[in-house]
Amino acid sequence: MRAVAATAALIAIGAAGLSAAPAGAAVRHVWVAAVPVSWNIVPNGRDAIMGVRHDPSETVFGTVVYRRYSRGWKHPMRNLPPGSGDDDGMPGPLIRARVGDRIRVHFKNLDTRFDRSHSMHFHGVRYKPSSDGAYVPGFSGDDGDVKPGKTWTYRLTALPSSAGVWPYHDHSPSMHESIDGGMWGMLSIRGRHEPLPDREFVVVFAPMGRFQSIDGRAFVGNTPVFTAFPGQLVQWDVMAMGSEHHTFHVHGHRWREHGVPADTKTVGPAESFRIRWRERDPGTWLYHCHVETHMEQGMIGIYQVKRR
Amino acid sequence: MRAVAATAALIAIGAAGLSAAPAGAAVRHVWVAAVPVSWNIVPNGRDAIMGVRHDPSETVFGTVVYRRYSRGWKHPMRNLPPGSGDDDGMPGPLIRARVGDRIRVHFKNLDTRFDRSHSMHFHGVRYKPSSDGAYVPGFSGDDGDVKPGKTWTYRLTALPSSAGVWPYHDHSPSMHESIDGGMWGMLSIRGRHEPLPDREFVVVFAPMGRFQSIDGRAFVGNTPVFTAFPGQLVQWDVMAMGSEHHTFHVHGHRWREHGVPADTKTVGPAESFRIRWRERDPGTWLYHCHVETHMEQGMIGIYQVKRR
Amino acid sequence: MRAVAATAALIAIGAAGLSAAPAGAAVRHVWVAAVPVSWNIVPNGRDAIMGVRHDPSETVFGTVVYRRYSRGWKHPMRNLPPGSGDDDGMPGPLIRARVGDRIRVHFKNLDTRFDRSHSMHFHGVRYKPSSDGAYVPGFSGDDGDVKPGKTWTYRLTALPSSAGVWPYHDHSPSMHESIDGGMWGMLSIRGRHEPLPDREFVVVFAPMGRFQSIDGRAFVGNTPVFTAFPGQLVQWDVMAMGSEHHTFHVHGHRWREHGVPADTKTVGPAESFRIRWRERDPGTWLYHCHVETHMEQGMIGIYQVKRR
Repeated sequence: MRAVAATAALIAIGAAGLSAAPAGAAVRHVWVAAVPVSWNIVPNGRDAIMGVRHDPSETVFGTVVYRRYSRGWKHPMRNLPPGSGDDDGMPGPLIRARVGDRIRVHFKNLDTRFDRSHSMHFHGVRYKPSSDGAYVPGFSGDDGDVKPGKTWTYRLTALPSSAGVWPYHDHSPSMHESIDGGMWGMLSIRGRHEPLPDREFVVVFAPMGRFQSIDGRAFVGNTPVFTAFPGQLVQWDVMAMGSEHHTFHVHGHRWREHGVPADTKTVGPAESFRIRWRERDPGTWLYHCHVETHMEQGMIGIYQVKRR
Repeated sequence: MRAVAATAALIAIGAAGLSAAPAGAAVRHVWVAAVPVSWNIVPNGRDAIMGVRHDPSETVFGTVVYRRYSRGWKHPMRNLPPGSGDDDGMPGPLIRARVGDRIRVHFKNLDTRFDRSHSMHFHGVRYKPSSDGAYVPGFSGDDGDVKPGKTWTYRLTALPSSAGVWPYHDHSPSMHESIDGGMWGMLSIRGRHEPLPDREFVVVFAPMGRFQSIDGRAFVGNTPVFTAFPGQLVQWDVMAMGSEHHTFHVHGHRWREHGVPADTKTVGPAESFRIRWRERDPGTWLYHCHVETHMEQGMIGIYQVKRR
Repeated sequence: MRAVAATAALIAIGAAGLSAAPAGAAVRHVWVAAVPVSWNIVPNGRDAIMGVRHDPSETVFGTVVYRRYSRGWKHPMRNLPPGSGDDDGMPGPLIRARVGDRIRVHFKNLDTRFDRSHSMHFHGVRYKPSSDGAYVPGFSGDDGDVKPGKTWTYRLTALPSSAGVWPYHDHSPSMHESIDGGMWGMLSIRGRHEPLPDREFVVVFAPMGRFQSIDGRAFVGNTPVFTAFPGQLVQWDVMAMGSEHHTFHVHGHRWREHGVPADTKTVGPAESFRIRWRERDPGTWLYHCHVETHMEQGMIGIYQVKRR
């Protein structure tokens, strides 16, 4: 992640009711733009499991996505750390921070395709109404309605209650078209002294046209291939966008939900959770939504654990 | 709430296997009737966010709701404590009790509009089969089939396993039409020594005709405007009725699920949960179901935290 | 359950990274076949609650189910322990084990009706890729594609993270038709020193044709009648298959979710959970999915607690 991590002064943010920022807390600057792209949901043109071909006429469309930029929106940059998925615009930048950090997301609307307003609305973090990013006529401001060519800076704080992974997404007047078109990404907030995982996989379940996508792609061979080695600390960041509930499942692995073992978990629109394990099961595994019609429509991918 | 709170004698309710009621436990009497009303899902006639108008011909219908009454069904009374939402029949009476209390719900069917049987079925509390309120031919009794003009008293006990918030709803032969028409409400059972919150908001997600409603209303400006002041203990009582799953979200706030931070939570039909926080974030916030199509169809409202 | 329970030698299963099996751990052999049957979703031909009749022409179909067999697939045997539901093929064998056990499921495909490949994919337990049972062209082997007349042995280990109840189901190229047709069952893994319950009820929510079924049956009078006596330790094993989310509810009873009382719980496709209580409430109760349209389409049954 491109972030200017300056040590924050130990001042109380009094008016907001916050106590002093913890020692070592950072102010992280992230530069993001809404950019038009041409997107192919099924780049290889086929559903390998069912043996069905899909023509580009059914799978290619123009849309707008979030793209990470260098300071001042000078150069586009990677959205994801290496190994976290395909770095092509869905999901948007993985925004990492630690509890106690402040985050400044500098957003620019470069939507020249549809010439629509856009915004960023963040879950899980603390902010004032002017950083809410949601549009409601009569009470919200420019934060929820960033016109083409304009910018807005969202000022966020990662509290102890922000630990975990969270969605962000467009909440402007165009939110429904934009979310259906892929304007979403994730925040990943770890505890003050919690280590980064060795692998962090971002999994966004979202319907896309008549397909069911993971990170904007459908069917094995198009969805991200996540990889890890035995011994690595692996983290899955899972969320859903759209209008449907899903069940996240990984073959051959289990985790604990408040102490109770699980290998399948419901995730509804804008819900999110993270799962961590120390990998020890070599093999080529499936991960997928276990809703049958969603699997059939492409919500399935491969997780490879290779011996070193 | 109108309740006759007499100190219960310390007698064991032996046959039911209950041990002695705790000191200070009350017997709470609640009087409820099923009453016909004319209901408007979109009283102001518009969806402010999308800028669409809705004619009364699409939004007004006749239905039956639960209404609180004074002892002996003499006078109609408020269903909700002040500040808990619009007091107009959806939801039905907020029935509050404490663990250890016994509750007597005296129900009268005043449905002169459809001339249908009705009933009350309560979640979360203990009762004998004669207070179940569910209709199944061949084994259930009059509790599940209260004819127009008739009455039934439901005898409930709040056990330690009853702490929390719970649905009640019609479970008579007309239950499907009645639930679609708004015959539901909530029980709120707090621990023996747990304080009442300063604000208690009742949020019922339910489809209503071609709209998605909160407490029987659709769109900002029609759904309840909940209000609080910084420093107040705020409680959200959330449930769903109908045939769909939802995700409850409040902007700018978080809570903990068994210790894990969350700001969005799945709630399916008849599921229910309560969320509490000490308010400290002034602003005008949105609360809504995060299922996109549900937001579009009206399942969204405003939560105002005003500086004193 | 028919299982050869030999005490396992205390050897480390080194290559798989497992430490030594605990003292008293067993190797459990289970023999299962996929067999064709004629199935009636509504054997008594009626929906007792709505008073509607259903003709066999709407409710009878040919399908394939899992059936337990004696060693060497010699004789068909009971799928379920007495009192756990109707022993007719849906669900498949209840496979019980304890943490630390190894399980060998010997599967034979006897599908002479459709002449399709089948397989078994298990949730919750540990296995190598060759026991995954899932078909993906190009990387999976015969375990996920057992041709008619062929056999496969799935080698599973119940780890501490396997405690609980879990689905198994067909994951072969025919999985979608097979799961819709009832090729599923449950694993029930209890802790090393955890007692068997007195009653164990297997509840599988699955759409079936235009009905919503419990264990392949629709409507009170067709769905399983579960029975218990006061004082018994009762366990409900609940899961869903298909493409829809459900909410499991039992009348007149409550349980705890990580300490929080509940009586209704969402279960999505391939999610599963177990609920235990010491029974003390005599009566004839309903258990059902609380999604309204699912109740109307048959997803409801009776639980009888009889005084001795």
